[in-house]
Amino acid sequence: VWALGEFGLIARLTTGLETRPDVLLAAGDDAALLDLCGTGGDQVLVATCDAQVEGRHFLRGIASPEEIGHKALAVNLSDVAAMGAEPRWVLVSLLLPPDLDVALLDGVYAGMRALARRYGVSIVGGNIAATDGPLTLDLTLLGAVERGRALTRSGGRPGDTLLVTGALGAAAAGVLAATGPGGAVALPDDVRERVRAAMAAPEPRLREGQALAALGTVGALLDVSDGLAADLGHLCDASGVGAVVEAERVPIAPDAVAVSSAIGRDPLELALMGGEDYELLFSVRPDAVAAAIEAVRTAGGQATVIGHLTDAAQDRSLRFADGAVRPLPRLGWDHLRSDASTPV
Amino acid sequence: VWALGEFGLIARLTTGLETRPDVLLAAGDDAALLDLCGTGGDQVLVATCDAQVEGRHFLRGIASPEEIGHKALAVNLSDVAAMGAEPRWVLVSLLLPPDLDVALLDGVYAGMRALARRYGVSIVGGNIAATDGPLTLDLTLLGAVERGRALTRSGGRPGDTLLVTGALGAAAAGVLAATGPGGAVALPDDVRERVRAAMAAPEPRLREGQALAALGTVGALLDVSDGLAADLGHLCDASGVGAVVEAERVPIAPDAVAVSSAIGRDPLELALMGGEDYELLFSVRPDAVAAAIEAVRTAGGQATVIGHLTDAAQDRSLRFADGAVRPLPRLGWDHLRSDASTPV
Repeated sequence: VWALGEFGLIARLTTGLETRPDVLLAAGDDAALLDLCGTGGDQVLVATCDAQVEGRHFLRGIASPEEIGHKALAVNLSDVAAMGAEPRWVLVSLLLPPDLDVALLDGVYAGMRALARRYGVSIVGGNIAATDGPLTLDLTLLGAVERGRALTRSGGRPGDTLLVTGALGAAAAGVLAATGPGGAVALPDDVRERVRAAMAAPEPRLREGQALAALGTVGALLDVSDGLAADLGHLCDASGVGAVVEAERVPIAPDAVAVSSAIGRDPLELALMGGEDYELLFSVRPDAVAAAIEAVRTAGGQATVIGHLTDAAQDRSLRFADGAVRPLPRLGWDHLRSDASTPV
Repeated sequence: VWALGEFGLIARLTTGLETRPDVLLAAGDDAALLDLCGTGGDQVLVATCDAQVEGRHFLRGIASPEEIGHKALAVNLSDVAAMGAEPRWVLVSLLLPPDLDVALLDGVYAGMRALARRYGVSIVGGNIAATDGPLTLDLTLLGAVERGRALTRSGGRPGDTLLVTGALGAAAAGVLAATGPGGAVALPDDVRERVRAAMAAPEPRLREGQALAALGTVGALLDVSDGLAADLGHLCDASGVGAVVEAERVPIAPDAVAVSSAIGRDPLELALMGGEDYELLFSVRPDAVAAAIEAVRTAGGQATVIGHLTDAAQDRSLRFADGAVRPLPRLGWDHLRSDASTPV
C-alpha cells in the first residue's frame, strides 16, 4: 500500500466521496468544517483527527509518558490552530498492547490533561481497544470557528506575502540527535535536551492562529507538519499559485543549526524538509504584513516574512541572496514512506 | 494493563476529567452530547468513536473487505442509534501495515461508503498512519439530535418495562462457528453463512432509535454491544435501578439456537452474554409499551418485552417460568479480557 505514496493513497480513498450540504469543507485541509447550527448559529464545527503510533511518532525512553500524551493532543490542536479556530472537545481512542504498564498510561493522560487544561479543552469520550501492535493514541479534536472566519489552505493569491511563525528545524534536529547519526555525535547537553523536547513535546500555535483569523487579511494558512517545502506545496496546490522562498530569510532554530553543524548537514535542509515543527505557514496581502506580524507578536509568538506567492502555479522556487534560484524540493516527510501520520 | 479489566481502566482514565459548560454528557454513555450552537440552535452535537482491530474485531478471510468497512461504520452508527440521534459525518483513521494490499483497502472503503450512503453520512476527513501492528479502522462519528431528545443510559426508572429490538445471539454464534469449536461441527451451509454475516456485518438500528427518541416515553436506551447481561448492567448502574429479566421472553435468534445445539451450549447463554448484536435495549413506562412496540415496527424492526426495572439497585435477576430466580451474571464480553473494543 505504501507504493502509492501517502498523497496518492489519500487521493485514491477520498476522490468522489459522497457529500452533504452541511459539509462546508471536507478532506484535504487541516480540518473539516461542518455546519451543525444552520441559520440558527454563527459557530461552525471544526473536526480533525491524527494518530500517534509508538516507534513511529514517539519512542518510549526518549519521550516521557507525559510528553507522549502532550504530543498526541498537540498535533491535533495544531490542526485546529491552522484553521484559526478554537478547540473545545477531544475524543481519545487508545490501542493498548497487553503488556502495557498502567503507570505509563497514567503519565500519558497526565500530559494530555495538562495541555487540554491550558487551552480549555475537555476530554469527552473515546475508546479502548486491545492490539497486538504498538501503543497508539488516536485523537479526534472538535472545535468551533465563527462562520466565514476559518482559514484554509486555498485562500492564497498571487502577490501575497508568505510568512511563518517561530523557527524551523528543531524537531527534525531532535529526531537526528535521538535516532540518527547525531546520537553518536558530541552535543552540548542543553542543546540535545532542547531538540529532544522540540520533537517530543511540540507547542501548538493556537493563539497565533486565532489572532490571524481575526485579522481578515490572511489568505492561506496551514501548519508545518510535513516540512516547510511539502506544506508550502500543499498551500500552492490548494490555492492554485506558485511561490518563491528567500533562502536566507527562512528562520532556522539555533539548536537546529548546532545539531546540523555537529553532524555535517545543511541546517536549511532541516528547516525546509524536517517536518513536525507545528509552526504556522500563511500568506497575507502585502499591505497587511506589518499588522499580521504585530498580531502574532501580541499572541505571544513571532512571524517572519520568507517569500511571496506568484501566479506561476507549478513553480516553487528557492531564491538565494546571490541571485541563484533553485526549485524547492517537493519532498518533505512523506508519511507513507517515512512512516509518520497525516490527517487527510 | 488488562489486569484492571476494561471498566476498571475506563474508570481510572476518566475519573475527575475537566469539563466545560457546553459538555452536556461526557464519557460513560454511548456517545458524548456537546452544545455547539448554544441558544442559537436546537441541534446538539453527538460524538462517538470505536475502533476495529484485525484479529480481534474482524478476520480477513472470514469477513470480506466490504464487510470490514461496513462493520467499522456500523458499530459507530449503532452508538448514535443508541442516543436516538441522526448520524451526519464520519472521520476515518486508518492504521495500515506496510504489506497491506491496496485492493483490500478499496473494498473496505466500498463497504463503508455503501453503508454511509444508506444513512446519508458523509466521510469528511480522517488520518492515515503506518503501523507494524494489525490493520485498524478507527472511526469517529458525528451526528445531531434535537435538544432534550437524546436517550441515555441513565433514564431508567423502577417499574419501567424492559424491551429489546430484534433477536440476540447470532453474532456470538458466528464467532463460535467461525473460530470456536463450531468450526469443526457440521452446520447447514445457510445457517453457517447467516451467523457469519451477523458477526461480520451487523445492522445498526438507527431508524428504531430515532423512532423511540421521538416518542418521549422512553426511559433508558443503549445498544447491545457487550452482551445483554453486561449492557443491562450498564443501564442499571447509570440509572440506579435493578432489573428482572424473564428468561423465556428473551428473543433468541433461530440461527443461534441451531449453532448452540450443534455444539452443545445453552442458546440463552449466547443471547445473554454473546455481545456484538447491536440491537437496542430500552425501558419505557408500562403504559407506553404498546406504542413503543408499534414505533419500532413502523421503523422496520421489532421489539420484545423481556422484563422490568426495579428499585433494588444491586439486583439483576433472571426469572424462569418455573419460578426459579438466578442472579443475572454480570460478565459479558469484557473487552480488555476478550480483546474487543469499547467506546468509553
